[in-house]
Amino acid sequence: MICNVVKAGGAVLEDKGLRNRFLEGFAALGGRKVLVHGGGRSATTVAAALGIPTTMIEGRRVTDEGMREVVTMVYGGLVNKEIVAALQVLGIDALGLTGADLSLVVSRKRPPVEIEGKTVDFGYVGDVVSVNAEALGKLLEWGKVPVVAPLSFDPDWGLMNTNADTMASEVAAALAADNEVSLTFCFEKEGVLGVDGRVIPEIDPALYGKLKSDGTVSGGMIPKIENAFAALSRGVKAVRITDIGHLDGGTLIYG
Amino acid sequence: MICNVVKAGGAVLEDKGLRNRFLEGFAALGGRKVLVHGGGRSATTVAAALGIPTTMIEGRRVTDEGMREVVTMVYGGLVNKEIVAALQVLGIDALGLTGADLSLVVSRKRPPVEIEGKTVDFGYVGDVVSVNAEALGKLLEWGKVPVVAPLSFDPDWGLMNTNADTMASEVAAALAADNEVSLTFCFEKEGVLGVDGRVIPEIDPALYGKLKSDGTVSGGMIPKIENAFAALSRGVKAVRITDIGHLDGGTLIYG
Repeated sequence: MICNVVKAGGAVLEDKGLRNRFLEGFAALGGRKVLVHGGGRSATTVAAALGIPTTMIEGRRVTDEGMREVVTMVYGGLVNKEIVAALQVLGIDALGLTGADLSLVVSRKRPPVEIEGKTVDFGYVGDVVSVNAEALGKLLEWGKVPVVAPLSFDPDWGLMNTNADTMASEVAAALAADNEVSLTFCFEKEGVLGVDGRVIPEIDPALYGKLKSDGTVSGGMIPKIENAFAALSRGVKAVRITDIGHLDGGTLIYG
Repeated sequence: MICNVVKAGGAVLEDKGLRNRFLEGFAALGGRKVLVHGGGRSATTVAAALGIPTTMIEGRRVTDEGMREVVTMVYGGLVNKEIVAALQVLGIDALGLTGADLSLVVSRKRPPVEIEGKTVDFGYVGDVVSVNAEALGKLLEWGKVPVVAPLSFDPDWGLMNTNADTMASEVAAALAADNEVSLTFCFEKEGVLGVDGRVIPEIDPALYGKLKSDGTVSGGMIPKIENAFAALSRGVKAVRITDIGHLDGGTLIYG
């Protein structure tokens, strides 16, 4: 079966107009589908309103006990349930899930790591160990559309903050055993942009090496493309990086 | 099939020690089961931290746009997902749901009502129209344990705040067509208390009329008992009002 796994980032979801345009595009996709969402910007806003400072190290959120409550509320509650409600209005029988529901995404709390000579403890951040593909498969077979928040579950520590791109890749890879999976990373730009500002239509590992070494690709785009290659190496058929207006366009990554 | 629908209120869930004791008792119940939770106190705390005032009229929360975001975060996110994670640790394959997920609990936004000569608009508060018993039944058949937040779904308005006792009664009544349903309201007291402070073991409609007219039963206990009778009239086999230590004890309400 063809299965579309689509990841939508915070910038796409934060603006209600953009979010609804994206959800209409997502609703129009045929076949089985799964939506994985971010929500980092909303979490930062809510945390600030609650007087909880946000600390980011190398683009990753440090998640202490207070921040864990915030991301549980914002990712698992606000962002997830508003998407589910909007999809139901569009006639899509959506179901919001975190990694704890149905033990969908089990992770292990990341041990402190060395970064530039300093020990950094990211706190309640989980590295994915396994995805419950059987439960996901059953929901898809049943005609439901899982909407997955970027929260995984460590049985020893509870809910864990996990990067949404990683969640999407892991979900896509787990479904690849029984489905022909396409993975789409939907963000604010039309795709991976070249030095001329135009979308690079296709990237293979050789071109990626070149783009990375000459600095065309940098920052947050690096983990996104590396997630894409990781997913391809685990059986995902196609990975796209694109914006909400071009769910079938953008940059195609292939292995 | 025997099916236990258990509702736990905010006071039971707010204290982590009490919550875990309650969840251990819930986990030990045999057969099919559904947990419906409240969370009003946590919502009030988070709203206050965000500078959003809480207005209660006749024990019901006025839910404007800001408060709807708070209850979506707190009921659908924080409280729901912490319960799901704790149940997974206890070996229970829980799944958190709001009324929007799977269109589980569809409601209609309450129109403004007259209270003591004043027009009161409760805002995003939903009165239940229908429960998706088929979806719930399928999850139960599949061995999953639904954990339901007190949020319903109005297709015209989105997520709606709905009283948790009402959600529990509606879920219990919907399941009664295909299951032998027991409904348990779990709160901070051992049951309905008589004037001597001791638990009244059984209440039928005649005794209820007496207790209400002599003031033994008052305040928040009145809608609780009336919910119980409503559930019995819709096919629920037994209703209990009890505390976390006596899931099989407390006060038995019968029709």
